[in-house]
Amino acid sequence: MAERRDHTYKIIELVGSSPDGVDTAIRNAMERAGETIKNIDWFEVREIRGAMNEGEIGWFQVKLGVGFRVLDPADLTDD
Amino acid sequence: MAERRDHTYKIIELVGSSPDGVDTAIRNAMERAGETIKNIDWFEVREIRGAMNEGEIGWFQVKLGVGFRVLDPADLTDD
Amino acid sequence: MAERRDHTYKIIELVGSSPDGVDTAIRNAMERAGETIKNIDWFEVREIRGAMNEGEIGWFQVKLGVGFRVLDPADLTDD
Amino acid sequence: MAERRDHTYKIIELVGSSPDGVDTAIRNAMERAGETIKNIDWFEVREIRGAMNEGEIGWFQVKLGVGFRVLDPADLTDD
Amino acid sequence: MAERRDHTYKIIELVGSSPDGVDTAIRNAMERAGETIKNIDWFEVREIRGAMNEGEIGWFQVKLGVGFRVLDPADLTDD
Amino acid sequence: MAERRDHTYKIIELVGSSPDGVDTAIRNAMERAGETIKNIDWFEVREIRGAMNEGEIGWFQVKLGVGFRVLDPADLTDD
Amino acid sequence: MAERRDHTYKIIELVGSSPDGVDTAIRNAMERAGETIKNIDWFEVREIRGAMNEGEIGWFQVKLGVGFRVLDPADLTDD
Amino acid sequence: MAERRDHTYKIIELVGSSPDGVDTAIRNAMERAGETIKNIDWFEVREIRGAMNEGEIGWFQVKLGVGFRVLDPADLTDD
Amino acid sequence: MAERRDHTYKIIELVGSSPDGVDTAIRNAMERAGETIKNIDWFEVREIRGAMNEGEIGWFQVKLGVGFRVLDPADLTDD
Amino acid sequence: MAERRDHTYKIIELVGSSPDGVDTAIRNAMERAGETIKNIDWFEVREIRGAMNEGEIGWFQVKLGVGFRVLDPADLTDD
Amino acid sequence: MAERRDHTYKIIELVGSSPDGVDTAIRNAMERAGETIKNIDWFEVREIRGAMNEGEIGWFQVKLGVGFRVLDPADLTDD
Amino acid sequence: MAERRDHTYKIIELVGSSPDGVDTAIRNAMERAGETIKNIDWFEVREIRGAMNEGEIGWFQVKLGVGFRVLDPADLTDD
Repeated sequence: MAERRDHTYKIIELVGSSPDGVDTAIRNAMERAGETIKNIDWFEVREIRGAMNEGEIGWFQVKLGVGFRVLDPADLTDD
Repeated sequence: MAERRDHTYKIIELVGSSPDGVDTAIRNAMERAGETIKNIDWFEVREIRGAMNEGEIGWFQVKLGVGFRVLDPADLTDD
Repeated sequence: MAERRDHTYKIIELVGSSPDGVDTAIRNAMERAGETIKNIDWFEVREIRGAMNEGEIGWFQVKLGVGFRVLDPADLTDD
Repeated sequence: MAERRDHTYKIIELVGSSPDGVDTAIRNAMERAGETIKNIDWFEVREIRGAMNEGEIGWFQVKLGVGFRVLDPADLTDD
Repeated sequence: MAERRDHTYKIIELVGSSPDGVDTAIRNAMERAGETIKNIDWFEVREIRGAMNEGEIGWFQVKLGVGFRVLDPADLTDD
Repeated sequence: MAERRDHTYKIIELVGSSPDGVDTAIRNAMERAGETIKNIDWFEVREIRGAMNEGEIGWFQVKLGVGFRVLDPADLTDD
Repeated sequence: MAERRDHTYKIIELVGSSPDGVDTAIRNAMERAGETIKNIDWFEVREIRGAMNEGEIGWFQVKLGVGFRVLDPADLTDD
Repeated sequence: MAERRDHTYKIIELVGSSPDGVDTAIRNAMERAGETIKNIDWFEVREIRGAMNEGEIGWFQVKLGVGFRVLDPADLTDD
Repeated sequence: MAERRDHTYKIIELVGSSPDGVDTAIRNAMERAGETIKNIDWFEVREIRGAMNEGEIGWFQVKLGVGFRVLDPADLTDD
Repeated sequence: MAERRDHTYKIIELVGSSPDGVDTAIRNAMERAGETIKNIDWFEVREIRGAMNEGEIGWFQVKLGVGFRVLDPADLTDD
Repeated sequence: MAERRDHTYKIIELVGSSPDGVDTAIRNAMERAGETIKNIDWFEVREIRGAMNEGEIGWFQVKLGVGFRVLDPADLTDD
Repeated sequence: MAERRDHTYKIIELVGSSPDGVDTAIRNAMERAGETIKNIDWFEVREIRGAMNEGEIGWFQVKLGVGFRVLDPADLTDD
């Protein structure tokens, strides 16, 4: 049973940004997430938008669900 | 690159309530969120419901995505 | 007003797993959540998937929104 | 078992209208529903529209699911 | 206020069928609805399906929301 | 033509509940519906939620569309 | 590059109406659109509704996205 | 036939804003639209968001589809 | 158990076309499907679009899910 | 490059049935699929319905996307 | 009030194309839009498709909502 | 009529993968599909996800609907 409960995942929602494109916006968010969350398993793209800046695309913005395994109770409440 | 990573946002999901209406339910949730999150940028309404109480509308309930900029790694894990 | 703000809820997104079926996957996630979150009110099923393992269903996986009342500001930022 | 079956709810779909705004349109529909249905528990907003009248907003129109507990079989067939 | 409450509408969900096509399936359902509901205002198509019968299309099936004005409380509970 | 009109179906929306799981919640709602509606053909699951009760899952709640054939005009207005 | 930019399309949203049925409602909207837009490529059905008139279907109403190639900048701003 | 073609509607998409709430944001957009479009019939709410400004809700933002009857061909291309 | 497994259905996705309208586009796809699949049970309309051809509607295009019973394993892999 | 192309997956859509419940309906479909497809990785639940039979639930019906790795070109065209 | 009405935005729907990929398709549409619309604020990706050409991807096609501030009434009717 | 039936299309659902980004994941799936399906016309992006691998994005995964013309009955059953 303990093992089964270890297969609980939490998903947080992030928006990554980049002036370069969709892939880099995703990579920037995942790099940021990886600094404090160690056991990320997957991401899901939920929305792609962008903000203009002086007539150019200033930022591609990608909303992501970021899923990671909950290893101990503190993971659940801190992330 | 550091700057780009600063343009990472996190979205948390809240439900605000009010007996007065939709706007106040939103305001109550945002006021609550603002007490502990300092750099909130936007909200998105995801669902509007309500609960009856003795034949009257007891609570308007508005589910919100609340987005804020992640300024340092602790922001990511604590909110 | 204080009372109204107490009717703010937060929803976190979890994925529960079980080799036994949908109900147990939900129960495993809720049991896990209940260890650190004391005032959970409801859950909403958002997705049902599964992973195969050697030709058998290894895991039923149920994505849940888990809602709980925010009692003090720390609840908001820690969960 | 009898008790469990008492936790059956029925949802009817109404559209409330008001020239004043979204909240009043909801209140008007719920007031109307409450005249004949005694045990309403909740509502869900499903659509918000409006009709113009001579260049002004004539009616805000809110489509609602209205949920109430089914207490005896006649409730099921009459509402 | 009484007038405003008269602008409450109820929507019931019907499926009309026809071997001839989508339009006739809609017409059959609306003709049926019109026999007992006098003040129908609009319909919304929610789903189009069909059933095969011996290698031919046996029935086009169109799920409709059918909206009508609630004129007196009995309308609300009887339809 | 009469025959075609007999292939009109009505769908009502119910929520079934059970502390045991999704299947039983569906069965409870369908058993309840079957007491007063004689010619039910199918159901469609529209939402799965649950309510907690003292840290346990108190109720699995399944929102269902319940479809049945309209045999005479009274069926249309009474269910 | 000039050629690529010529492969920009604009989509406008129309509602076509007809007392005869879905196909004619679509045809009426497209005929209307074709009077002023010369290079229409495709349409997408987004909603099918209808309005009753004295107990009969008065109008089938079909909401369409209508896509056409943008050939010069004026096309973009005028349609 | 000419008459039928007159029952063609166009829908444009606007976002209205207000610091006061959802209703006023809708009213502001409709007032703006009414200055140049004379025959508006209805609006549909498509999204509700908001922007924060110094810890307060700066703007409620409501995305609307605004529908109006196309009376002559110029209406189609100019709006 | 063998019998239950016989109640497995497969759904393939087709797009039927016709210059005549939605119904004929559906019929053309189902006629085509019926040439090689013997036990089709139902279809579900998933999208309705159309392609223009020299200012006229060249093709109504209807995307369909086509469901049929899987009678032996080869049905599963060949269709 | 060859390796990357090996990470192509195909998803087929099945409906599994069972008189016993949602889990068994899923298991029946996956058991059937596993007889002819050797490398299934995951499934996604897309719809849950049911058919009544003499006043009882005759069949729970679960529509599934079933994903498997495409190992050689024949896999792509045969499943 | 005048200021509030200036915070009205219009969204037009474009499809950008490119043989190179999703980002360039977006950039091509936004470059085209920027030639005639001066105050574009944001875009929202609504659909990603592609057209094959002789066995290769001929065009990535991205449907966008393009939002810009309405500064004077002519902006509303001309774009 | 024969010609019309030739305008039947089939859509299969694939997931393409790449460590490089969204565009390459699409290209890998389409290249794979093109090896055995000769007359592919278009693709539709249905989902974008990704899998992490040792703290890096291991695979961008793009779910696609891939549409191709059905030229003879064997195409229908083999793909």
